[in-house]
Amino acid sequence: MHKLIFILGFLCSTMLTAQTDAETLRTIYTTSLTNGKSYEWLDYLSNQIGGRLSGSLNAEKAVQYTKEELEKLGLDKVWLQPVMVPKWVRGTKEYAFIESGLGQTTTVNICALGGSIATPFGGVKAPVIEVKDFEELKALGRLNVAGKIVFFNRPMQPDLIQTFEAYGGCVNQRYAGAMEAGKLGAVGVIVRSMNLRLDDLPHTGSMSYGDLPNEQRIPSAAISTNDAEKLSGMLALDKNVKFFFSQTCQQMKEVQSYNVIGEITGSEFPNEYIIVGGHLDSWDLGDGSHDDGAGCVQSMDVLRLLKESGIKPKRSIRVVLFMNEENGLRGATKYAEVAKQKDESHIFSLESDAGGFTPRGFSFDCSDAVFNKIESWRSLFKPYLIHYFEKGGSGADVGPLKTETNVCAGLRPDSQRYFDHHHAANDTFDAVNKRELELGAATMTSLVYLIDKYGISPISNSEELKD
Amino acid sequence: MHKLIFILGFLCSTMLTAQTDAETLRTIYTTSLTNGKSYEWLDYLSNQIGGRLSGSLNAEKAVQYTKEELEKLGLDKVWLQPVMVPKWVRGTKEYAFIESGLGQTTTVNICALGGSIATPFGGVKAPVIEVKDFEELKALGRLNVAGKIVFFNRPMQPDLIQTFEAYGGCVNQRYAGAMEAGKLGAVGVIVRSMNLRLDDLPHTGSMSYGDLPNEQRIPSAAISTNDAEKLSGMLALDKNVKFFFSQTCQQMKEVQSYNVIGEITGSEFPNEYIIVGGHLDSWDLGDGSHDDGAGCVQSMDVLRLLKESGIKPKRSIRVVLFMNEENGLRGATKYAEVAKQKDESHIFSLESDAGGFTPRGFSFDCSDAVFNKIESWRSLFKPYLIHYFEKGGSGADVGPLKTETNVCAGLRPDSQRYFDHHHAANDTFDAVNKRELELGAATMTSLVYLIDKYGISPISNSEELKD
Repeated sequence: MHKLIFILGFLCSTMLTAQTDAETLRTIYTTSLTNGKSYEWLDYLSNQIGGRLSGSLNAEKAVQYTKEELEKLGLDKVWLQPVMVPKWVRGTKEYAFIESGLGQTTTVNICALGGSIATPFGGVKAPVIEVKDFEELKALGRLNVAGKIVFFNRPMQPDLIQTFEAYGGCVNQRYAGAMEAGKLGAVGVIVRSMNLRLDDLPHTGSMSYGDLPNEQRIPSAAISTNDAEKLSGMLALDKNVKFFFSQTCQQMKEVQSYNVIGEITGSEFPNEYIIVGGHLDSWDLGDGSHDDGAGCVQSMDVLRLLKESGIKPKRSIRVVLFMNEENGLRGATKYAEVAKQKDESHIFSLESDAGGFTPRGFSFDCSDAVFNKIESWRSLFKPYLIHYFEKGGSGADVGPLKTETNVCAGLRPDSQRYFDHHHAANDTFDAVNKRELELGAATMTSLVYLIDKYGISPISNSEELKD
Repeated sequence: MHKLIFILGFLCSTMLTAQTDAETLRTIYTTSLTNGKSYEWLDYLSNQIGGRLSGSLNAEKAVQYTKEELEKLGLDKVWLQPVMVPKWVRGTKEYAFIESGLGQTTTVNICALGGSIATPFGGVKAPVIEVKDFEELKALGRLNVAGKIVFFNRPMQPDLIQTFEAYGGCVNQRYAGAMEAGKLGAVGVIVRSMNLRLDDLPHTGSMSYGDLPNEQRIPSAAISTNDAEKLSGMLALDKNVKFFFSQTCQQMKEVQSYNVIGEITGSEFPNEYIIVGGHLDSWDLGDGSHDDGAGCVQSMDVLRLLKESGIKPKRSIRVVLFMNEENGLRGATKYAEVAKQKDESHIFSLESDAGGFTPRGFSFDCSDAVFNKIESWRSLFKPYLIHYFEKGGSGADVGPLKTETNVCAGLRPDSQRYFDHHHAANDTFDAVNKRELELGAATMTSLVYLIDKYGISPISNSEELKD
C-alpha cells in the first residue's frame, strides 16, 4: 500500500514536472503575445531615436534609453560597460550618374559603404569595368583596371533557400572590393547592393582597406539592384559608358561608447552565466528596426518574460546590448575580454541578429553531445511551430565568447524578406510585425528557461527532461 | 560475378532513384526561384485588374486573363466551366460616426459586410449595445436589444499561434451577428474587424441572414480595430453614445461566371485526377493579392513548373481557379458536381488559400494510413524548411470534392501577417514577397510530383520512396 502511494506519488510528480515545462512555455508565449514589451520598446528605438551608427548621438541616446528601460524591470544589476568605438560619418547625400558615350546622363541611387573614404572634392568620373568576382578582376590585371571604376555586379544567388547563405556568397565584393581594386590602380568601386529583390534602394554595410597604403585607398559605394541592372545593360551596349559619383564620408576619431548590460543573478549558480543579446548600433539609412533593434528588444524582453512568468533562474541571466557590431565589433570584443578577466563562466550565449521575422528555430555552435541534449527539447517547441534546430553559426557578437564550455547560438527567423531591408533606408519599424517579434522573444525565453533549468552539459543528465 | 553485377546494378538504380526525387525537388525549387511566373502573373492580376468580387467586371477580366495565360503554357486542355454566381455590390463609400451624449461626433472607419443590405436612405442612428458573443446577446434579450445597434467586439485571441484558429473563434460574429441581432429587433450591427493588429482598416467578409424574414434583416458593417477600441472606450464612459452609419450596398441578380481549368493529361492513368487550385474571386477593398491571387498564380505555376522541370505526370494534373469562394462557394460546388457527373476519380485535391507567405507545410484531410505515407516524404522537404505535415482541414474550394478516396489538403504558409491584410484595403501586391510566393509554388509542385509518382493509396507500396 505504502509502495503504491509512493509509486503514485512519483508518477504524479513526474507528470507535474512533465506538465510544468510545457505549461511554462505556454505561459511564456502567452505573456509575450498578450503582454509583451518588445514592440513598444522597438517603436521608441526606431521612431523616437532612429538609426544608431556607432559613435553617433543616436547611438548614445539608445544606450541611455535601454539602460533606463532595463532599470525599470527590477533586475538585480544594470550597468554600462565602456568601450571605444570607431566613428564614421556619411556626410552629405551621395550623388551618382551614368554617362553614356554620347554624354547623356542617368542619375542612379548609391550610398557610401561604411568605412569608405570620400571621393575627391567634386566627385570622380571614370570609365567602368564590370566584374563578377576577384578572380575576374585579377585576370583583367592592372592594365585594364587602372584609372577605372570597378563595378562588382555578382547578384545574391536566388535559389539558395536560406538567404544568409546567398549573402555569404556575395559580401566579399562589398567588404574587400575596394581593397582588391585599389591594388590594381582603380579610382573607385561600385558594388551591387546585397539585396535579393530588384528595387531602387542602395544597401550600405562595412568595407575595409586592410593594410592598404593610403594612396591605394579608393572610395566605394553600393548601387541599388535596379541601377546595377541598368548600368550593366548600358555597359553591354556601350563600353564607353562612364560613371560619376560623389561622396563626402569620413572616418573620425574613436569615441567612447557602451555595451548595455542587465542581469538577473542566479539563485543556485550565480557564477554560471547565460546571456542573450543583440547589437544596439545600426546603420544610418533606416532606423535599424530589423538590424538589430529587433534583437535588442527581444533580448530585453527575455529577462522581463522570465520575471513575468514567475521563473527564478538558477543561473545568472544577462541581457547584453552590444555596441558596434556593424563596423568594428568592439562591444563584443570588449565584453568577451572583461568576461575572461573576471573569469566569468559563460555556459550559453544566444544572439538574435537576423531580423524580427517569424522565428523558425536556432543554430547552435556546440558539440554533438550538447546538441543532442538540446534537440531532445524539440517537441516542447512544436506547438509554436519552432522546428529548426541545427548545428551551425551563432552570431557575430557572441562569437568572441566561444570556448570549449560555452555554447553559442543564434535565433533563426524566417529569412526570405530580411535582405529586402538589410542596411537600407527601408529597415524601418513598419516592416516589423508585432506578433512575429513577440514570438521570437518567447522562443528565446523558452530556450533560456530550459537551459537554465537543465544545464547545458551533456554529462549532467541527472535532471532529465520529462516530456 | 553475374550476381555481383546484378546486385551492383540494382544498387546503382536504387541510388539513382534515390537521387532523383531529391534532385527533382531541387530542380523544381530552383526553377521557381529563378524562373517562376507566379509573381509576374500576380502583378497583372493585382495591379492591372484589381479586386475581383464575384459577378464584377474585374472577375470576368480575371477569368479571361488566366485562361489566356494557361493557354500559353501548352497544356493539354484549357477550358472555362460555367457557373452562376451571386452579385453583391458595395455602392458608395460607407460613412459612420460615434455621437457622444453631448452630441459631439467622431468619424470612424467601417465597411459593409458582404451580403448585407443597405441602411435606410440617409443612414441609421441608434444607441449602441456592446456584446462579446451570442450568449451575452441572448441574455440581454429583446428588451435591451430592440431599436439598438449591436456592437460585436470580441477580439481575435492573440495567444493562439495559428492565426486561423483565432479567426475561427471570432468569425461567427461577422457571419451571423446580424441574423442573431435581427431576431431581437436590433436596427443594425457593427462587428469588430477580424484583425489581430490595431489599425484603421475595416475588414469585410461574408455574412448571412439565413432564413430570416425580410423585416428582421438589418444592415451590418465591420469597424476597424482602432475604432472598435474607441467605441468601446466611449461606451464605457457614456452609455448614451449613439452610432450612425450609412451604406448603400445591394444584392443584385445572379450572373454567369466561370471556373478556369487547365490540364496536363496523365500518361498512364489519365482518369485519375490530381488538382491544385485557389479562388479567383476576391473581396473588393484591396486587390486580392494574398486572398487569393497568390493561391491562383501558385496553382497555375504548379503545372508550368512540372513542364519546365521535364516531369511528365502519370496522372492527370489540373489547375482549377474557383469562382466565388468568398460569398457563395458556387464555383467549388459546381466543379464537384460536374466531377461527380462525369465519374472523374479525384485522388488528391490541394488548395492554396492562406496567403502568399513563406510556406511551412500542408494540412491533410485523409486517413492515418495515407497520412503516414505522405509523412514519409517529409525528409525530402527539409532542405526547403518545410516541416508542417499535420492532419486537419484543407480548403473551402476542395472541401466539396472530399470522398473516401480523395485526399484533400491545404498549403500552410506562415500565418502571422495574414489577418493584417485579409479582406481589407491593404491586401495588395506590395504585401506579397516574390520569394515567399515562389517557395509556395515550388512546395505545392513538389508534393504534386510525389503524389503523381507514388500514388496516394496507402496499399500500393510497390513503388516505395527511396530516400
